[in-house]
Amino acid sequence: MTANGSNGSTIGDIGEFGLIDQVREQIGHNRHILIGSGDDAAHISTNDGSYVVSTDLLVEGRHFRRDWSTANDVGRKAAASNLSDINAMGGVATALTVGFGAPADLPVEWALEMVRGFEQECGRVGAHIVGGDVTASDSIIIAVTAMGDAPRPVRRSGAVAGDVVAVNGDLGLAAAGFATLSRGFRSPKAAVEAHRVPHPPYAAGPQAARAGATAMTDISDGLVADLGHIAVASGVAIDIDSSALVIPEAVATVGEALGRRAIDFVLAGGDSYALVATFGAEGGLPPGWTRIGEVAEGAGVTVDGEVYDGPTGHQHFR
Amino acid sequence: MTANGSNGSTIGDIGEFGLIDQVREQIGHNRHILIGSGDDAAHISTNDGSYVVSTDLLVEGRHFRRDWSTANDVGRKAAASNLSDINAMGGVATALTVGFGAPADLPVEWALEMVRGFEQECGRVGAHIVGGDVTASDSIIIAVTAMGDAPRPVRRSGAVAGDVVAVNGDLGLAAAGFATLSRGFRSPKAAVEAHRVPHPPYAAGPQAARAGATAMTDISDGLVADLGHIAVASGVAIDIDSSALVIPEAVATVGEALGRRAIDFVLAGGDSYALVATFGAEGGLPPGWTRIGEVAEGAGVTVDGEVYDGPTGHQHFR
Repeated sequence: MTANGSNGSTIGDIGEFGLIDQVREQIGHNRHILIGSGDDAAHISTNDGSYVVSTDLLVEGRHFRRDWSTANDVGRKAAASNLSDINAMGGVATALTVGFGAPADLPVEWALEMVRGFEQECGRVGAHIVGGDVTASDSIIIAVTAMGDAPRPVRRSGAVAGDVVAVNGDLGLAAAGFATLSRGFRSPKAAVEAHRVPHPPYAAGPQAARAGATAMTDISDGLVADLGHIAVASGVAIDIDSSALVIPEAVATVGEALGRRAIDFVLAGGDSYALVATFGAEGGLPPGWTRIGEVAEGAGVTVDGEVYDGPTGHQHFR
Repeated sequence: MTANGSNGSTIGDIGEFGLIDQVREQIGHNRHILIGSGDDAAHISTNDGSYVVSTDLLVEGRHFRRDWSTANDVGRKAAASNLSDINAMGGVATALTVGFGAPADLPVEWALEMVRGFEQECGRVGAHIVGGDVTASDSIIIAVTAMGDAPRPVRRSGAVAGDVVAVNGDLGLAAAGFATLSRGFRSPKAAVEAHRVPHPPYAAGPQAARAGATAMTDISDGLVADLGHIAVASGVAIDIDSSALVIPEAVATVGEALGRRAIDFVLAGGDSYALVATFGAEGGLPPGWTRIGEVAEGAGVTVDGEVYDGPTGHQHFR
């Protein structure tokens, strides 16, 4: 056994989060790193200012399928997932880089339509592609880095007991769409469309920052799992009031059709790119935000005071 | 035939640079983009300052091989190729993001040693990893984005007739090392090592910027090919004086052993991450830079006044 306990184990053994924890121990720090890895985006100082930055790596067959999504959809979703990370810091993205790997037999038109979709989504916040790299690879790879301005970055670690927990954006639709497509169905359309092209509430991130949000993240792993990241980073307990959660009609339909609890899509479904944030109890919530729970002393995330017994968040390598 | 001429063609048909040209037509612009795609790095303004950014996508089997390079080597080279792009703008990298894809059976220790090598190389300029993403994939993928400060970014487009062309760093060694390994040999060591772990002259980029370099790029595709990028961007002709080029001893050895002209490794060999820049004729070159040619009115790159007849730069998809 080596000191770091990695002797002989594979990435499949320890999983994505296990690997990330071990990698983090290898990484140094400099005066430019105002916020490092472990949040939705890093916050970096320049000689004359600062910016926030986040990166995502998307692989065909794991993050998207050409038979489920058009090239335009894939481009929009690749952009959205990264723009959402900047949004979750309370920032506005301005510039993105794209590394693109593809097999030689990929139609040029697919690549161009993907880029068009990417730029369309970026257009929702006024950002653009500023650089990239192209290489041959066996399957399609899209590596995105988004950078932007965040005058007051909102971290995951600022929640305190007594704060109110609130969401902005749809929960559960994208996960219900994924479940629908996985079973070979193509409707309800609202769910399938939400899986193909998410609609992050881009105005809500900077709005929450201005309103003094104490912690914030986007829903990529699932509401319970992502609130878990805030609970750990902030050293608090969080309780969700399930009666405050809205179950979209399409999610109810999918739940019924597949014999699954609709509330589980809302509590555990990933890739919605809605925002969840905590706010001080006084002063009220900004418009468009819905109160769904509260922060207390302690640790862990509960639903109606109980440990959540539904499916856990998505894990790669499993 | 569609308007963009891509009807029915594949990426293999048009190649990496053809795809990049067509992609560029899809991309918009905003006030934050001071320098966009097409240079070694983009230059982006923030609300309060600016930074430079560049990205690379490395795929196992195409950019590195686990039987040729250690995990540490792969990490160092992945960092070096990106730090070099910031260097080639006259900047100093401060922060990098890494997207990492790997099969589930990859030993954790390989991933950690890759990160250690990456951080070691970053340490040469004081930069660190500030964020990343991990996903499962069939082969190893390393997507790197480097960001840094460049008080006076040096573009490819500023060379003017009468300027002096100069290089800083070794030419040809990495390409000779690649040729050596491709034939199943493991020596000469100087060449093989240069392929495994390049040594970009990190101090030379900012030095050239301070000295007023008019144009600059790093040698990734090969000296003639990369000077071609400067010639096109600047709208000038460039002539290389081959008698001024130093042929490293190991390159001469490899040329002899493989029956190839040693000078071709120097003129066309990629991945050396040396710098080539143009400077005004008056004022002399900064220390460490070697004059290898000059800029004239016209177009194209020549060697001793003749069109270069050696191998052309590396192309993916071919």
